[in-house]
Amino acid sequence: MPETYHIVPEARHDALVTAAYRHRGYTPDEAGEAARFCASATRHGIRTHNAIKALHLDHLFGSGGKGCVPGAEIEEKPSRFAAVKTWDANRKLGQPTAYRAIDEAIALADKYGTGTVAVDNAFHYLWGGGYVMDAARRGYIAYTCCTAALAEVVPFGGKFPTLGTNPHSWGFPTTDAIGFPIVIDWATSVVAMGRVQQLLREGKPLPPNAAVDKNGNPTADPAAAVALLPFGAHKGYGLSLINELVAGLIGGSLPTIRNRWENVGAGDKGTCCFYFQVTHPEAISGGAFAKGRSQAENVKAVIADILGHGNEHCILPGQIEAAFAQKTAAAGGLLFSKAEIEALNELAAEAGQPLWNLEDFGTVAF
Amino acid sequence: MPETYHIVPEARHDALVTAAYRHRGYTPDEAGEAARFCASATRHGIRTHNAIKALHLDHLFGSGGKGCVPGAEIEEKPSRFAAVKTWDANRKLGQPTAYRAIDEAIALADKYGTGTVAVDNAFHYLWGGGYVMDAARRGYIAYTCCTAALAEVVPFGGKFPTLGTNPHSWGFPTTDAIGFPIVIDWATSVVAMGRVQQLLREGKPLPPNAAVDKNGNPTADPAAAVALLPFGAHKGYGLSLINELVAGLIGGSLPTIRNRWENVGAGDKGTCCFYFQVTHPEAISGGAFAKGRSQAENVKAVIADILGHGNEHCILPGQIEAAFAQKTAAAGGLLFSKAEIEALNELAAEAGQPLWNLEDFGTVAF
Repeated sequence: MPETYHIVPEARHDALVTAAYRHRGYTPDEAGEAARFCASATRHGIRTHNAIKALHLDHLFGSGGKGCVPGAEIEEKPSRFAAVKTWDANRKLGQPTAYRAIDEAIALADKYGTGTVAVDNAFHYLWGGGYVMDAARRGYIAYTCCTAALAEVVPFGGKFPTLGTNPHSWGFPTTDAIGFPIVIDWATSVVAMGRVQQLLREGKPLPPNAAVDKNGNPTADPAAAVALLPFGAHKGYGLSLINELVAGLIGGSLPTIRNRWENVGAGDKGTCCFYFQVTHPEAISGGAFAKGRSQAENVKAVIADILGHGNEHCILPGQIEAAFAQKTAAAGGLLFSKAEIEALNELAAEAGQPLWNLEDFGTVAF
Repeated sequence: MPETYHIVPEARHDALVTAAYRHRGYTPDEAGEAARFCASATRHGIRTHNAIKALHLDHLFGSGGKGCVPGAEIEEKPSRFAAVKTWDANRKLGQPTAYRAIDEAIALADKYGTGTVAVDNAFHYLWGGGYVMDAARRGYIAYTCCTAALAEVVPFGGKFPTLGTNPHSWGFPTTDAIGFPIVIDWATSVVAMGRVQQLLREGKPLPPNAAVDKNGNPTADPAAAVALLPFGAHKGYGLSLINELVAGLIGGSLPTIRNRWENVGAGDKGTCCFYFQVTHPEAISGGAFAKGRSQAENVKAVIADILGHGNEHCILPGQIEAAFAQKTAAAGGLLFSKAEIEALNELAAEAGQPLWNLEDFGTVAF
């Protein structure tokens, strides 16, 4: 059954979200970059990381004396290594921090072929896929990982949650080849805790091996689930460990106290870390593509081979997001459900902004 | 039930394996580096990638006018990017190519903080975990991926194998923290095709969602299995795509013709690609660890937190390999089963070398 979306002009969205962030104490720059990021998430159909989620996260873990400090300044640490920067974000808002980090990684890749930016004392950047998608659209290979806000995931073979849902995001510059960037972007848990709560509300079971009960045994009952499991058994566990090890090398402290500020003692840290890495595609080109193809033509041929031979109905990572962005562009505004507009109006009320009338917006259904 | 191993002095192993590679036409350097790598695989209990497998791979895909050219010289491509090198391996043997590539990536990381080496026209490097383990033991963060020899894996939602089993390997410098390097290393298929054949011989079923039949439907019957599936549904599919995209950017041609030389037409390519990336841990250190810890102490505390709270029985990636290396060291030689020694004697006979007598070797069982 098709869903009806209300078409909200992007300028109106950005004004509301900027005002909401300003109301929480963020600077005009921070609020504007946060709004830009929320618009991008909505444009690509990432409804789990739109403005509603962003400001809810800020409420839970952010401003108001928690993990995020409005107006914080990023500090670059001295280093003898030219192609890598390490920053202390001093708990600056995640979206502007991440935008600046990936821009810096791109600048380093332009110069050295590859560039890395490691960020200590970071907040939450919401949707890692957004940053690598931007970089990929600009022509770069990009990767990011971070430590997720809370330790909710049980290591393979264990019973207590000591790992974050720790996402990984990779973007590839495939726009010339197939019309959009391939973006591989997911958490290392089978599902998010929000999905467990949603299935509980709907009276539906969890997928197999997605969560454990209080004894550490796998359960499909969302009411019994107390912690999550990594996807793919030991393989997803290893991927989740990567984020914790990288963060531990950058400056993150114990996973189980992260963002649990009541447990963060004097001299300890409860912040997340970000890691960005960008590579210039020219830098890894051997220049000798089969049948005289260019690099983009070669990537196009490789993708066509993978999705040929009876695999024509397979979907590429990033394809659903690209299709949603096309529908958004065709509609001429950002697409929100009625429930989402009501939630955005709560944020408008909090920030003393005029509320939106559903009747002001056209609709589209698909 | 414990397995009995025969203790083979490493010098005798290396002499046999070197002779076997020399017999196939490889130079003394190549043969010596191949033997060194096979010894490392055996020392760490990687029985799927020891000398027997290495020389079998060479027989299937390597010397003798196939994918590998004994004595080939690696050619560095000109580049304007200082922290990335791209090589044409000209089908040189995989182990010496990979050893040189990771050494070069380490040298770049020493200078720039991070270093990348992309390799076109590569053969097969066997066990990616071995290279990143070496780098991690030397104090670096290391990553490698490559395109697997054959397309045997079906994309998520598809029916025909167009992806390799495409492995990823990450190594972390955790020896100071926990006594061994954490090494996350696996293929992106649920199982290897060799495992399907083994289960067929043993009359046992496949794990769920590991393989498809000729119609592209999942099957647990190893006799009906014609192709493999990625682990973790769309997530493992995405990870497998990464290797194909990176290879496509470096210079690899269509996955479905890779190493199927009868299908590689004029002007086309059937070779694999390697990708190596090394980062100096100092380069990503923010220098501000909780409670005055050093970077290694911080990583140790993070790992202890992950494996605490009731998770004490969890295993870290690389731990089994480190334990096997300890048993090897205690035994004073490389550990082979009787069947493995018989297979090595076939290689000795092929190369005109004296056969080994089981009675010459001490034994150990565990």
